[in-house]
Amino acid sequence: MGTSRFLRRAIPSRAAFWAVLLLLVLAIARPGTRGQSHGPGTLTRDKKVLPPALVEELTALRDAALADDYAYRQAAHLCESIGPRPSGSAQAQRAVEYVADELRKLGLEVSLEQMKVPHWVRGAESAQLVEFPGQSPGTTQKIVVTALGGSTATPPQGITGEVVVANSFDELNALGRNKIAGKIVLFNFPFDRRKAANGLALDAYGEAVVYRSAGAKAVAAMGGLASLVRSVGGAEYRLPHTGWSDPAGIPAGAVTAEDADLISHLAAQGKVLMYLTLTPSSLPEVTSYNVVADLKGREHPEQVVVISGHLDSWDLGTGAMDDAAGVAVAMETAHLLTRLHLQPRRTMRVIAWMDEENGGRGRDTYTADHGAEFSDHVAAIESDLGAGHPLGFSVKMSFGAQEALHPVQEVLASFGANLIKPISMAPGADISSMSKAGVPTLGIMQDVRTYFDYHHTAADTLDKIVPQELRENAAAMAVMGYALAAMPEPLPR
Amino acid sequence: MGTSRFLRRAIPSRAAFWAVLLLLVLAIARPGTRGQSHGPGTLTRDKKVLPPALVEELTALRDAALADDYAYRQAAHLCESIGPRPSGSAQAQRAVEYVADELRKLGLEVSLEQMKVPHWVRGAESAQLVEFPGQSPGTTQKIVVTALGGSTATPPQGITGEVVVANSFDELNALGRNKIAGKIVLFNFPFDRRKAANGLALDAYGEAVVYRSAGAKAVAAMGGLASLVRSVGGAEYRLPHTGWSDPAGIPAGAVTAEDADLISHLAAQGKVLMYLTLTPSSLPEVTSYNVVADLKGREHPEQVVVISGHLDSWDLGTGAMDDAAGVAVAMETAHLLTRLHLQPRRTMRVIAWMDEENGGRGRDTYTADHGAEFSDHVAAIESDLGAGHPLGFSVKMSFGAQEALHPVQEVLASFGANLIKPISMAPGADISSMSKAGVPTLGIMQDVRTYFDYHHTAADTLDKIVPQELRENAAAMAVMGYALAAMPEPLPR
Repeated sequence: MGTSRFLRRAIPSRAAFWAVLLLLVLAIARPGTRGQSHGPGTLTRDKKVLPPALVEELTALRDAALADDYAYRQAAHLCESIGPRPSGSAQAQRAVEYVADELRKLGLEVSLEQMKVPHWVRGAESAQLVEFPGQSPGTTQKIVVTALGGSTATPPQGITGEVVVANSFDELNALGRNKIAGKIVLFNFPFDRRKAANGLALDAYGEAVVYRSAGAKAVAAMGGLASLVRSVGGAEYRLPHTGWSDPAGIPAGAVTAEDADLISHLAAQGKVLMYLTLTPSSLPEVTSYNVVADLKGREHPEQVVVISGHLDSWDLGTGAMDDAAGVAVAMETAHLLTRLHLQPRRTMRVIAWMDEENGGRGRDTYTADHGAEFSDHVAAIESDLGAGHPLGFSVKMSFGAQEALHPVQEVLASFGANLIKPISMAPGADISSMSKAGVPTLGIMQDVRTYFDYHHTAADTLDKIVPQELRENAAAMAVMGYALAAMPEPLPR
Repeated sequence: MGTSRFLRRAIPSRAAFWAVLLLLVLAIARPGTRGQSHGPGTLTRDKKVLPPALVEELTALRDAALADDYAYRQAAHLCESIGPRPSGSAQAQRAVEYVADELRKLGLEVSLEQMKVPHWVRGAESAQLVEFPGQSPGTTQKIVVTALGGSTATPPQGITGEVVVANSFDELNALGRNKIAGKIVLFNFPFDRRKAANGLALDAYGEAVVYRSAGAKAVAAMGGLASLVRSVGGAEYRLPHTGWSDPAGIPAGAVTAEDADLISHLAAQGKVLMYLTLTPSSLPEVTSYNVVADLKGREHPEQVVVISGHLDSWDLGTGAMDDAAGVAVAMETAHLLTRLHLQPRRTMRVIAWMDEENGGRGRDTYTADHGAEFSDHVAAIESDLGAGHPLGFSVKMSFGAQEALHPVQEVLASFGANLIKPISMAPGADISSMSKAGVPTLGIMQDVRTYFDYHHTAADTLDKIVPQELRENAAAMAVMGYALAAMPEPLPR
């Protein structure tokens, strides 16, 4: 039905009909009432602007970042000369010292803020199917497995148990304690590659990762012997993905997608017995540090803008995407500010967080030490989704704060990093307590279509960082960070 | 220079010029002289045809193959119930028995043709950089390494040596004996992913694989301690690719592309020392078999058409693409011929070859035992490039033989498998001696753009076979195999 015909039926009087139509036309034509929130470029009566001198500085900063290789050199050093940096490791400590030294060299006021971190160390890990339908005499099938962070060890000589496959928590519960007790449970929930390819990788990750983080506890509660999860990731290269698992007092591991398929195919045909060895150790806690480095504000040193990434990584790869890249772009921001002699109005604080992967002690320590100052934390940015092309920022902040960022978006538009997308959760684990305390928080919103193919695997290595894309991330961090620290008024809460 | 001007200069007499021009025009206009070799659909006076009844049979065979799952079930059993099938292993023996049994069930006349095969078994394998530029005290960098087939072992406690990087044999020779003796050489020649993405994967493989097969010998000749090669393959998932290396009396391994990058970056900065352990064993040779199964010809049983794949695989994955798929589609052909009650004019011989990967003893034994009958081998097909969509066949045969296949191409066209591409080498390692003896040979020409991402790795597993694509391969093998065995005249030599 056409609009005018619909209106004619709904409004019986001819005069009233024309009156309503006129009002509609006027409403549609009225300038400024549509598109007010649609970002930069929309002409509205209360368009936000920044001082022209600041826009010039932001533009210079952006262009310098897009042409500089300081961030890439930092990432390369962290990955290739230092290597994997799990909490409590010698490499994590070396990374603390290296980043602190580099930031001191740039003239920042650096403090190492102390904490105790867990020291979980991978041991032997192997698995074989020793009994399965159609088995040839004298043969086994190898299963590629890795221990999840925080996993309890099997005895050194391993354990043998029947494998029960559950595709979800509902299936686990339906099986019941009788069928789970004494068994090895495999959660076979697939990471949805179609979602990831459509830019919904975080949704795909979110719906699968619960089995990695909470599966072992659920299995332990039902008397299970061990818990395995199908690796949470999208690649097809028989790569196991590690990650945190809530301690459950039973061994917890991840098998590759291929091995999860194999086990579930065989288990559908009959009994499958697995011989599993995982011997990680939880060593005594270790003293470690957040690196906190200030470029003091010239006008409001007490007001702080945090720019950050996390320094620790998982141990299988060298933690390039997760998260040498984030630390490197925060360092590059400081590097460029000093090179371009830009001293912001507020204090710009670079933080290289410790223990993001293994419990968040870095965040907790910072919150305990600085929580009272959060009212003066103007904003906090973290980059922790790799080094893919930045599309803009995910933000948790008021609508007014989002509006105040419009002129910054204009500076970011030249390289496509100008989106501002409000999300409901904190856009970074290390800045989540600040977010909870009302600090406006931002995360660089990278292209993550393939991020979870590498995430927490041996393949998270330097070659996965595309130098030009890292420069774009550095430009996004530098422009947004400096804008927040230099704009005349602090970002509204 | 234009053609007519050229002719005028070459032929001085005006009358002769016009006579020559007339002859040229007539020659160009003569029907049937152009396009004769341009495949099906070209109208020529001597268009090849098959008897309509045979075309009907081929069409029925094609349609049955495109709807059947016998081949997939065979591949699944070989990969998931039997597993990796390296020469000399219990699994290879079990695969011989399984395939022989299945073909006997179909009513074929099966013989196991005996040979001795090498029995090389992978041992421990690990590598670390223990000294490198920028190293943190007390840390090492892990290197992902796998032994190449035929590699000599290091002592059980490993070896330590300086790593020298050579990007080519020319660079190795330029370095000279003094810089190579006592060192671990890394050949860092990259597999060209752009070629592979463009359908030139075999070219990319060919130019890189020489370092895997011949590198160790070259290093040993210069007194090197061990030889490593950058994995020959296109994926970016820290996967080592194994494969044959000519025995050189020194340890030979493959590191991942990522680790090759890491080592060469660090070696460019200074001295790199590697601790390397590879402990494979060469056990005594083992008796093994080709499975040779005949569906006897009703008119010319002495004339043979071979359809084949190889039964052995590397040990890291389960040998799905390489080459359970090839064996499965040859088995499917026999399955469908018996199901459709099609008895060919000539003998259709299914061969599941042994030891394609580890020296080619299966080929050599067949050649020794059957070489005298090669004059009656009408044609031989092997499928050994995975299970991707078939685009047609690579062939080594006379132009006349290619012409005789035109009507078969018409049957293959409905699912896009109708190309016939002459190549200069034999289109399959196991049929290469037949090719040399003048037997027309064919290889299914699969889409191999991603084949070398998985080839000889742990990720060559069942999930890499797309069921519908395997059906297409089965249809290609069945249609071509049956056509060759049933056409009125044998394929001309």
